[in-house]
Amino acid sequence: MADNYVVGVDFGTLSGRALVVRVRDGAELGTAVCEYRHGVIERELPVTGALLPPDWALQDPGDYLGVLRVAVPAAVRAAGIDPDEIIGIATDFTACTVLPTTVDGTPLCELAQFADRPHAYPKLWKHHAAQAQADRVTAVAHERGETWIGRYGGRISSEWEFAKGLQILEEDPEIYAAAARFIEAADWIVWQLCGHETRNVCTAGYKGLHQDGAWPTPAYLTDLNPGFADFVGKLSHPLSPLGGRAGGLTEQAARWTGLRPGIAVAVGNVDAHVTAPAAQAVGEGQMLAVMGTSTCHVMNAGRLAEVPGMCGVVDGGIVSGSWGYEAGQSAVGDIFAWFVESAVPTDYRDRAAARGIDVHTYLGELAEQQRVGEHGLIALDWLGGNRSVLVDHDLSGVLVGLTLATRPEDIYRALLESTAFGTRTIIESFDASGVPVRELTVAGGLVKNPVLMQIYADVTGLPLSVLASEQGCALGSAIHAAVAAGAYPDVRAASAAMGRVDRAAYSPDPERAAAYDALYAEYRALHDHFGRGGTEVLHRLRRIRNTARKEVATR
Amino acid sequence: MADNYVVGVDFGTLSGRALVVRVRDGAELGTAVCEYRHGVIERELPVTGALLPPDWALQDPGDYLGVLRVAVPAAVRAAGIDPDEIIGIATDFTACTVLPTTVDGTPLCELAQFADRPHAYPKLWKHHAAQAQADRVTAVAHERGETWIGRYGGRISSEWEFAKGLQILEEDPEIYAAAARFIEAADWIVWQLCGHETRNVCTAGYKGLHQDGAWPTPAYLTDLNPGFADFVGKLSHPLSPLGGRAGGLTEQAARWTGLRPGIAVAVGNVDAHVTAPAAQAVGEGQMLAVMGTSTCHVMNAGRLAEVPGMCGVVDGGIVSGSWGYEAGQSAVGDIFAWFVESAVPTDYRDRAAARGIDVHTYLGELAEQQRVGEHGLIALDWLGGNRSVLVDHDLSGVLVGLTLATRPEDIYRALLESTAFGTRTIIESFDASGVPVRELTVAGGLVKNPVLMQIYADVTGLPLSVLASEQGCALGSAIHAAVAAGAYPDVRAASAAMGRVDRAAYSPDPERAAAYDALYAEYRALHDHFGRGGTEVLHRLRRIRNTARKEVATR
Repeated sequence: MADNYVVGVDFGTLSGRALVVRVRDGAELGTAVCEYRHGVIERELPVTGALLPPDWALQDPGDYLGVLRVAVPAAVRAAGIDPDEIIGIATDFTACTVLPTTVDGTPLCELAQFADRPHAYPKLWKHHAAQAQADRVTAVAHERGETWIGRYGGRISSEWEFAKGLQILEEDPEIYAAAARFIEAADWIVWQLCGHETRNVCTAGYKGLHQDGAWPTPAYLTDLNPGFADFVGKLSHPLSPLGGRAGGLTEQAARWTGLRPGIAVAVGNVDAHVTAPAAQAVGEGQMLAVMGTSTCHVMNAGRLAEVPGMCGVVDGGIVSGSWGYEAGQSAVGDIFAWFVESAVPTDYRDRAAARGIDVHTYLGELAEQQRVGEHGLIALDWLGGNRSVLVDHDLSGVLVGLTLATRPEDIYRALLESTAFGTRTIIESFDASGVPVRELTVAGGLVKNPVLMQIYADVTGLPLSVLASEQGCALGSAIHAAVAAGAYPDVRAASAAMGRVDRAAYSPDPERAAAYDALYAEYRALHDHFGRGGTEVLHRLRRIRNTARKEVATR
Repeated sequence: MADNYVVGVDFGTLSGRALVVRVRDGAELGTAVCEYRHGVIERELPVTGALLPPDWALQDPGDYLGVLRVAVPAAVRAAGIDPDEIIGIATDFTACTVLPTTVDGTPLCELAQFADRPHAYPKLWKHHAAQAQADRVTAVAHERGETWIGRYGGRISSEWEFAKGLQILEEDPEIYAAAARFIEAADWIVWQLCGHETRNVCTAGYKGLHQDGAWPTPAYLTDLNPGFADFVGKLSHPLSPLGGRAGGLTEQAARWTGLRPGIAVAVGNVDAHVTAPAAQAVGEGQMLAVMGTSTCHVMNAGRLAEVPGMCGVVDGGIVSGSWGYEAGQSAVGDIFAWFVESAVPTDYRDRAAARGIDVHTYLGELAEQQRVGEHGLIALDWLGGNRSVLVDHDLSGVLVGLTLATRPEDIYRALLESTAFGTRTIIESFDASGVPVRELTVAGGLVKNPVLMQIYADVTGLPLSVLASEQGCALGSAIHAAVAAGAYPDVRAASAAMGRVDRAAYSPDPERAAAYDALYAEYRALHDHFGRGGTEVLHRLRRIRNTARKEVATR
């Protein structure tokens, strides 16, 4: 019997990756990457050069199609297989990355009259300029006693659909009015593949506030802003379960990708969530941390619980039949990259280069030689705000304990540790809410950093399993493609056959774990002081900063 | 009438400088520097390589004599004058830099049997390892109701004679017993010049707890440690006023320096204090900030007041006839140097080099373009501990408000500002205690940084005068040499003739000053939270660090 294959396509923050996978066993046969030409648009619009305010992050949807045109055929070529043996394609996307479109799915930014309007562009997940709107989305929900607010840890993120949509209405009502549809990029890309709109249960639940079969009510929307009453009309559509078949590949998409028209296209999915089956982390209490520029934590449980500060809980949000929980950290790898780019002196760079290793590896080696606490530092990992458990993107980072003897490797290690403390804070919130974390599995680019992995094991006191694929997201998408194509009865079955994990790859050292307990207590005290109202200095500094920048912009 | 000349010699942290000055008008005719061969001994002893614990800072007294042998003759040659026209020499020193000697002034570290004993070496001012002893020196004084404790802002520094002496007793009693004399380097160098011991009123008062004509009592010393009862015996000696004549230059010292034997040698003095006459800042409420690696604030007032957190108040401690006040910041230029050395990336360094400017200047240019508050940061300037007004060397630095968009120039500016906030905190403590600061004059290496100077004017809201000499300390010493030689009746008269200042060189900008008021309020709130018991995290991190390092050392 001839082998069949599937293609998984992972749309990340800076690039998209296609992976060709054998349906029988998940073997990865070929892969290719396509960088987004415009990357993350943070300072000015590509066409007009119009300056963006602080905290904006946009993308160009044409870059997503580039991945289909370039990376998919390249991956198939690299796999050395006959494209006709490919039976399905599935995608996963960053989320909440969301864009306004016409009724036929055309992005408003691609219409000539809107090309110079920032609000016409897709807002990337890390667009953090809708905090004021998010605060009202949260506050009005509490005032009205909306039951769904508890499903989101009591706070709605500025990253999500309602905050971003409300920002458009209030800052550019013409764009808002022109947006017949307001759609996750996860669903938009599927629309491009199969030719008609679908909506997936995952983003509708985690990012769109869809719970128990319903959207927020018009009365709630009106309380936010009378002009917002029609917002759900721009979202609503029958929802499809993960692993479902959205449709067949269109002729046009077949030409882009080089695949056969009519093969199964799976419904949209999210990068972190799709990785859980790839890592075989779909059981009760198996938390998956997808660690890259940011970290997303996902976990299944049979029981519904309201975890303070979690991002959300959605029925079937990760795998049909379980409650899927999500939490996250806004910046993780981004923090380490920031440090290496902006705070490492020349002599360190030179010594790393002389050894033929990158600066992260060199700093990691130096950091690894230290005993726990030897650097005398504690950091709060909020350089990109805090997603869980505080859900506040106006927070910022804090570094405590600096001396004239503090070295780059000291701060680097303190930053690594700070993100591990952030993950432990999330785990403890789950544990305390009756959905205990029994196992921690790590996926994402940062699994390649063994120093970081050991710190996570020591800080959390949990054995660390590691996804045994370099392309966890794309493999997870491929698993969904196989289910959509009918090769497996469900995602759990496909995960068992096609996923792979290195169980307990890192074990906590008891002595280091005990030493970290003391440092974690300091982290938690600072966390609560700076993040829970002990002082509002971070918010005041943010306001002072934004005011000063506005004055600069208007000079 | 032929002109006469004097030589001022300034002993700094890393080098000593000699300056030849014309008595008539203070004209600076020639100068030379001699670097200390051993610099600051922080990690290991030079002879044996024995490792030093954290927070130690020693020096080698032979390096001080090198300055007399090398820098003095070189300065005279550079001046192009006849050495026989030089009528006096005076010195100033870092303080409290203190060493144990035999009865004839031989440093114990120069005896073969003690060369491998860290406690036999001079303890530099920034030796901060006697904090435990300092805490007891303070606590026992309060318990016993010693009246002199109020003269030191209620706290005795770990940098001073009693803490350092007690550390020797408790950690190396044999060295303590062998020390017939325990003497400030300021007085030791004068001993080398004139051949007999003298003690100056300035260091005895500020660093030796000598007040109202008396030393601390044997009963007090016994309460600290029964073995410490004889400590004052190692210090006591008639005290000489500043500007007094210690004696005549010995034949040996004349051979070292190339000067005439028998010329006037002035009594010892301290670098910051000696600079006040050089900057013509000897009047009521004229605060002088000597800004270098650290900052020392000195000010005269007719009235005796007890300023919380000041370093000390001494009758005649700066100029005879006034109460001399001292306060300080443990690390200032050291912080900026630390940042440039350990946290500035290669591309910044390259751009500075391409422009032919140093990294400080380049970062200063970038920082200067920002509006107040635009970087969103606040720092606590405690990377070397806090000397005033908290008097706690176990504190450490804090940086608040970091984001992924934070740039090196942002942190650099926040660090500059943090030291200005520290100075404002000191000024406000004086103002609130009835000895108001009417004018701020700046001296020291950092006056060459115009961005920093403008920030100080904007943060304090005071016009900033600047010492108009590159060699303020050495000029101040020269002024004292002229008085010791009888060329002027007193230091005030010599200051008026030989000192120089650029009055109100920097004026506060009202808009920036108002904006800084808001940031200063944040600084003060963080200052009190981290420094006054809101949290003890900095102390706990220090203890954790020290424990971890001890474990490393004993592995």
